[in-house]
Amino acid sequence: MSSDSAIVQTARAARQASVALQSVTDKQKNEALLRIKQVLAERKTEIFEANEVDKKLAEEQVAQGKLSSSLFKRLDICNGDKFDSILSGVEDITHLPDPTKRVSLATKLDDDLELYRVSVPVGVLLTIFEARPEVVVNISCLALKSGNAVILKGGKEASHTNAVLAKVIQDALNSLPADSSIPKEAVQIVETREDISALLELDRFIDMVVPRGSNSLVKYIQNNTRIPVLGHADGLCSLFVDKDADLEKAKKIVVDSKTNYPAACNSAETLLVHHELLQSDKFAAIATALLAAGVSLRCDTATYNALSNVDSKFKEQVSQSTDEDYDTEFLDLTIAVKVVQDVSEAIDHIIEHGSKHTDCIITEDASVAEFFMARVDAAGCYWNASTRFADGFRYGFGAEVGVSTNKTHARGPVGLEGLVIYKYRCYGNGNAAGDYGSGKKQYLHQTIDQNNYKI
Amino acid sequence: MSSDSAIVQTARAARQASVALQSVTDKQKNEALLRIKQVLAERKTEIFEANEVDKKLAEEQVAQGKLSSSLFKRLDICNGDKFDSILSGVEDITHLPDPTKRVSLATKLDDDLELYRVSVPVGVLLTIFEARPEVVVNISCLALKSGNAVILKGGKEASHTNAVLAKVIQDALNSLPADSSIPKEAVQIVETREDISALLELDRFIDMVVPRGSNSLVKYIQNNTRIPVLGHADGLCSLFVDKDADLEKAKKIVVDSKTNYPAACNSAETLLVHHELLQSDKFAAIATALLAAGVSLRCDTATYNALSNVDSKFKEQVSQSTDEDYDTEFLDLTIAVKVVQDVSEAIDHIIEHGSKHTDCIITEDASVAEFFMARVDAAGCYWNASTRFADGFRYGFGAEVGVSTNKTHARGPVGLEGLVIYKYRCYGNGNAAGDYGSGKKQYLHQTIDQNNYKI
Repeated sequence: MSSDSAIVQTARAARQASVALQSVTDKQKNEALLRIKQVLAERKTEIFEANEVDKKLAEEQVAQGKLSSSLFKRLDICNGDKFDSILSGVEDITHLPDPTKRVSLATKLDDDLELYRVSVPVGVLLTIFEARPEVVVNISCLALKSGNAVILKGGKEASHTNAVLAKVIQDALNSLPADSSIPKEAVQIVETREDISALLELDRFIDMVVPRGSNSLVKYIQNNTRIPVLGHADGLCSLFVDKDADLEKAKKIVVDSKTNYPAACNSAETLLVHHELLQSDKFAAIATALLAAGVSLRCDTATYNALSNVDSKFKEQVSQSTDEDYDTEFLDLTIAVKVVQDVSEAIDHIIEHGSKHTDCIITEDASVAEFFMARVDAAGCYWNASTRFADGFRYGFGAEVGVSTNKTHARGPVGLEGLVIYKYRCYGNGNAAGDYGSGKKQYLHQTIDQNNYKI
Repeated sequence: MSSDSAIVQTARAARQASVALQSVTDKQKNEALLRIKQVLAERKTEIFEANEVDKKLAEEQVAQGKLSSSLFKRLDICNGDKFDSILSGVEDITHLPDPTKRVSLATKLDDDLELYRVSVPVGVLLTIFEARPEVVVNISCLALKSGNAVILKGGKEASHTNAVLAKVIQDALNSLPADSSIPKEAVQIVETREDISALLELDRFIDMVVPRGSNSLVKYIQNNTRIPVLGHADGLCSLFVDKDADLEKAKKIVVDSKTNYPAACNSAETLLVHHELLQSDKFAAIATALLAAGVSLRCDTATYNALSNVDSKFKEQVSQSTDEDYDTEFLDLTIAVKVVQDVSEAIDHIIEHGSKHTDCIITEDASVAEFFMARVDAAGCYWNASTRFADGFRYGFGAEVGVSTNKTHARGPVGLEGLVIYKYRCYGNGNAAGDYGSGKKQYLHQTIDQNNYKI
């Protein structure tokens, strides 16, 4: 062990902390979270000083055009009630139900042989994020609440703030009474890009990577590790307006899905329109609602031609699309528009171009809606509702670890449940498998009342 | 699309078939399975002829020492009641509950906005397996029952048999009445190693790889794809005999875990012994039970010395261990033995050397057992029961897709539930996210009676 590099020591320490975390109770976890909140409040001055250092350095970068002003804004945790909301966010997590120790299967294999499937922490998380220092606090608390150890790596713009926040959390853990101790290595921070490369190789110590940041960050991680990644690179959400759509609902959903917060992953990027809507003035009405909301439309030939009579003040917002537009996450007030013959063609388009995030059909025909929602392979399939509802808080999870476009483990907005897996606990009395089988003992396979099981 | 290579066409066809499979009912899936059983029975002669071709070629390989006789045996599906058991296995799968369309969350976000989390097929599976041609039938039927499309690649020794079995399944799907049609591309077979290399790259079409075969096969796949792999490379299960173990239970569990089927992944490979057992004759009694069952012991110095007085007829079965022995999956009648000071050292050893498969503590002390079962990070944590119980059929799942040592998605013996994920279905009435928030509408987040939801 002495020959381990520093980064392997970090990962090994996280693994050891995660073992200790297995037997911590929900009460102990909540006490630790409230202690973290308290020490954060006590050391506000120190935290703000570190944040000022980061902001000063970042200001120079902004002046030199090396850093965007929006990134600078996200760096600031001193402004307004930002710090207070970080503190109340910590307390909010204590009110969430413990996702561990839940029994999802209980079977009596034989009179003296019982099997339970119980939720347990995934183990060790690696979180890589950009700019926002509050992620240190938020993800550390979500990890602790779910019984996971976490290794954090933030952006270098926030390195002073991140380091102090992590230190404060470690000190808070260290100051807990001995009988509810959580090792301070449950939360660790690393600093360099080389550390990340090394950690992404350490699948024997790290169980899940939770990236928080840009498309390119997530793609880099997905392409450079065998460790499961919880997250999404793309959010290419589509809307299909069917021929039997209610026009008012269509206008409202399309405008909200595109304009409510264009930079979000659950905003719509592609509008598919049933060809019959181009024969009436319905498509023009929907398009005009978007145009009036300031949206630029990238239209295929049919939809472009259908807008030839659009009000002259909107002319400049309408252009012909390229193939690439249908694979583009615009993240601003731009949407790609395309005609389709029917719901099947809409589904085909979404399967080929979508990112399995959230897709919506707008129709009054229930059978067409069900056809769409069954066949579209996305984390969220919506009928007559804005794609913007795809969010952990809106779903009522109380916290959002991230949004996943994976096809395994956790999908869509992910709450604390995404940070747990299960183990089988088997309780015997000296049982041997060789005693069961043809002509021997038989398995009972009776369901046990799970309320009888307490761990 | 026309520029797609043949293998991309195969993968795309699987994806398209998986879309069609989304709306197939359980009744239709069971009808398809029974039709497959029927056509397999009808074309038994053709299947046996293909199997004879494979066996004839394999015989030559065995004669030349290029193929093991055990591999040859696994190739044979004509022998005894093997074919009949393949057929009854197909029917057994129809009796399993449909793992899809299960609702795990139902929330009223607002009066006219409802959210449901519903289990759905993962999508497209890729199965790579060796020798046993019955995997073609078994995995195709498990895939169909769970609504997944599957691409199969078997060992070249069984290529004729595999090809005919896949053709028969496709013909059976093709012969279904139009109203319950499942596209024949739901089951496809590929032949070459190059095909596999290409498919392992196609994460945009393939959602999960399910390897069935040797440690080296699984490791190769895990190291060469970004697609999630459901399975296990290693099965390094450990037994810890605590100082408060009941001697009779210990002997029974240790012998069964090692000898019941040594080649299985759930057989024990390491025996950890509390040091106090070496002071009495308890360790010698356990060791003698293993030796009498034909097991060779690779002992550390302390346990080796403790066996200095062992019956002379067993002398040759006892040797000193090397470090490597504690990382070795022997898969035969050999076990590595080591003394530990206490349960904590046993846990540390298992975390460092185990494979997160199944580990067992033998003790009469409930608090020590709970400490072990909480802290050992394995799919199965057992107290006083043989590790050999870690099996889908023994757990009562009715089918076993594989055993997973992953930390996400599915863990331990995996039944049909491992082949599904969920999607969120959201039902609105023209709802916009911009209408909710501070000073606007509030989310209700009320739990809905799930019985009201039918899809």
